[in-house]
Amino acid sequence: MIPFKLSDELIEQVEKLIEIKNDAVLLELLEEIHYADIAEIIDELNLEEATYIIKLLDSEKTSDILTEVDDDVREKILENLSAKEIAEEIDELDTDDAADIISELPEERKQEVIFELEDREHAKEIVELLRYDEDTAGGLMAKELVKVNENWNVLTCVKEMRKQAEEVSRVHSIYVVDDDDILKGRLSLKDLLTTSTRTHIKELYIPKVDYVSVGEKAEDVAKIMSKYDLEAIPVVDEMHRLVGRITIDDIVDVIREEAEKDYQLAAGITQDVEADDSIWQLTRARLPWLFLGLLGGIGAAAIMEGFEEMISKYAILFFFTPLIAAMAGNVGVQSSAIIVQGLANDDIKGSIKNRLIKEMLLAMLNGIILAIILLIVVYFWKDDINAALAISVSLVIVIIVAGIIGTFIPLFLDKRGIDPAIATGPFITTSNDIFGILIYFMIAKLIIGI
Amino acid sequence: MIPFKLSDELIEQVEKLIEIKNDAVLLELLEEIHYADIAEIIDELNLEEATYIIKLLDSEKTSDILTEVDDDVREKILENLSAKEIAEEIDELDTDDAADIISELPEERKQEVIFELEDREHAKEIVELLRYDEDTAGGLMAKELVKVNENWNVLTCVKEMRKQAEEVSRVHSIYVVDDDDILKGRLSLKDLLTTSTRTHIKELYIPKVDYVSVGEKAEDVAKIMSKYDLEAIPVVDEMHRLVGRITIDDIVDVIREEAEKDYQLAAGITQDVEADDSIWQLTRARLPWLFLGLLGGIGAAAIMEGFEEMISKYAILFFFTPLIAAMAGNVGVQSSAIIVQGLANDDIKGSIKNRLIKEMLLAMLNGIILAIILLIVVYFWKDDINAALAISVSLVIVIIVAGIIGTFIPLFLDKRGIDPAIATGPFITTSNDIFGILIYFMIAKLIIGI
Repeated sequence: MIPFKLSDELIEQVEKLIEIKNDAVLLELLEEIHYADIAEIIDELNLEEATYIIKLLDSEKTSDILTEVDDDVREKILENLSAKEIAEEIDELDTDDAADIISELPEERKQEVIFELEDREHAKEIVELLRYDEDTAGGLMAKELVKVNENWNVLTCVKEMRKQAEEVSRVHSIYVVDDDDILKGRLSLKDLLTTSTRTHIKELYIPKVDYVSVGEKAEDVAKIMSKYDLEAIPVVDEMHRLVGRITIDDIVDVIREEAEKDYQLAAGITQDVEADDSIWQLTRARLPWLFLGLLGGIGAAAIMEGFEEMISKYAILFFFTPLIAAMAGNVGVQSSAIIVQGLANDDIKGSIKNRLIKEMLLAMLNGIILAIILLIVVYFWKDDINAALAISVSLVIVIIVAGIIGTFIPLFLDKRGIDPAIATGPFITTSNDIFGILIYFMIAKLIIGI
Repeated sequence: MIPFKLSDELIEQVEKLIEIKNDAVLLELLEEIHYADIAEIIDELNLEEATYIIKLLDSEKTSDILTEVDDDVREKILENLSAKEIAEEIDELDTDDAADIISELPEERKQEVIFELEDREHAKEIVELLRYDEDTAGGLMAKELVKVNENWNVLTCVKEMRKQAEEVSRVHSIYVVDDDDILKGRLSLKDLLTTSTRTHIKELYIPKVDYVSVGEKAEDVAKIMSKYDLEAIPVVDEMHRLVGRITIDDIVDVIREEAEKDYQLAAGITQDVEADDSIWQLTRARLPWLFLGLLGGIGAAAIMEGFEEMISKYAILFFFTPLIAAMAGNVGVQSSAIIVQGLANDDIKGSIKNRLIKEMLLAMLNGIILAIILLIVVYFWKDDINAALAISVSLVIVIIVAGIIGTFIPLFLDKRGIDPAIATGPFITTSNDIFGILIYFMIAKLIIGI
């Protein structure tokens, strides 16, 4: 397969065709391109051009395109469409994608669009999905699934399934319910391919079936599905009635978003921003963390001022503050990142105390190796054993303290139900800068004895 | 579903049962537990206990358990098993998992195990998979798939498929090949459920099928499958012959590993370590980056020494070096993280020059806001407008330079084919510390005029 590559030439060609309104050639060109790739093209066009393409193509294709374009591009395109036009797009989509798009609309528009939906059964299901929080199983699931009644025989079952399968883009499992829609078990497609058609469902189905409740957190659904290698999981309500199904492709998005969020927090970026967002959006995501760093720096300056009397005799101590601060920050980020990642993977077992002892030993080992190097460098550079000792000994202690803080804070936040990922990045570097510099000057003062 | 929770009590119970060799109760207990959960239990046991369980359970279950335990636990358990015992485990596994496990064995053991494999057809397929690099489509794919010949009719096809489906744990698509095994297209399961049995495959199949080549990078396969929402993709060789199939669950692992690797690099941790690894493994992953930080710190100290003559009159400048260094580091990490993430998602379009200009404007905006705050603080604190100006003006320039470096380096590395993720974390903070401090003192000197 030759992968699609978005090129400036292609975008220019599309823009040109829109300008001269050559619909025939444009249609022919876009015909060959996958909707996910057309979405990438649209992300690069201006709003009029984008709307032009959405109105030109038929809604079977544009509905898929709309699910793939950037959130803010979609928002603007939808503003340009009438409620009826949006409803035509929504009618083509699976319930989960449909609900996602409708939930982004302003309140009164939502109702207009839902009113315009042609398939009333579909509309009912979408409205049901709108009730759920987007970060739960209910928010992820689709209503499209293949289910059979335990009281049917295989013949009825296959007939019903053929009907249902036309609505469902991918059949993973066939779920078995009783007359009250209570989930009883599943039939695998493999069983279906390899069993005689005369058997009764009651005798055939596998009663052991993994499922999640509508209220389960999206993150936990992702963990369950990837741990047990599931490609789809049924969702039940409080009465254990089968209400929907989550497929692995939605979970791939959850995993990616979780990972990106943690990565951004570690880098000191809040909110979900991308390189192509506006300067204003990027500033809002970055400035708060920089402001935190500024406060930390002012704190560090105030601490150093407290030790000003040492500056005439031991200026060298001041030269090494960036080193101490950097090491405290680096060790803190390393420790916290390992804990945050372990927590995300459910790998952190055992007591907090044991973890802190382990980190202390680790930090001590790293600290002593680095301090010996530093001792030799400073001693040969400055020929002042007191200063060299003061700097090296404090380095060891600063590294140990930084490691302990970096380990403790995420564990503590996690215990309190707060996302430990906020403890990485600027938060930990800033607090470790301050602690590090304070410890450094206090110990140096002790050793040098001024 | 009540999620499995690994508890100390459960582990103690298992250990106790092993100690008193109560196999009956142990089997009954483990019977109820999913293999992925048993793997978690085994990760917590010592080697003898782990081996005991592996030898106790039948190979249908233990083979799955072995694919899920930690790499180093597996390595040790396999050392405790004979080649014949390992072969029995391997015989139960799909070719991709089988090849993964065999590839971890020492060279001569590999041959012994392959020699002991009972199913010679399976053995041949595994040996074929061993040829491929693990980071390519060939390394990810399994040989198990359902394929039909374009010259068959649906009746033959269904008969053949039933046979093949018994070997394949999950049927996603039915691939259509010609007499030379060349991939021609696919049949969807949905088509199969909704079509009369008399049709010929040639008339029925969809010629448009996504595929990847055996040599395609794993990362790119992941991108293709998640972009186009594919649950399985066929793999072809250089002659376009169908040689295997990659399923989405393998891709979930690739995505997770990629994200973890980038996260660890950003936090200054090399290699794939976990919180539960030994102190020695963790030190090897962390110390090199700390050493880099140490060198940076020594460099910073040397730079500051060069401006020593300013210390008597403008000690305050030295108090603010940690602030300057921290801001340079934070801005650098923010900029590089956004670029690294954008590159990972193929979101970075347009020229490097435009990106640098955008980052410059962004850094200038952030820098000026922060500098105004700092100017006011320092002025009211020290009542020295020269010092306040020197510090604030340098802050703006340092932030701009840090943003440009943070943007440029990952883009540059990416262009040279080097993983841009190494440019985040300690690498960028260390270099920005040095640049930041140098620029800071130079500009301060200019403004104050000493």
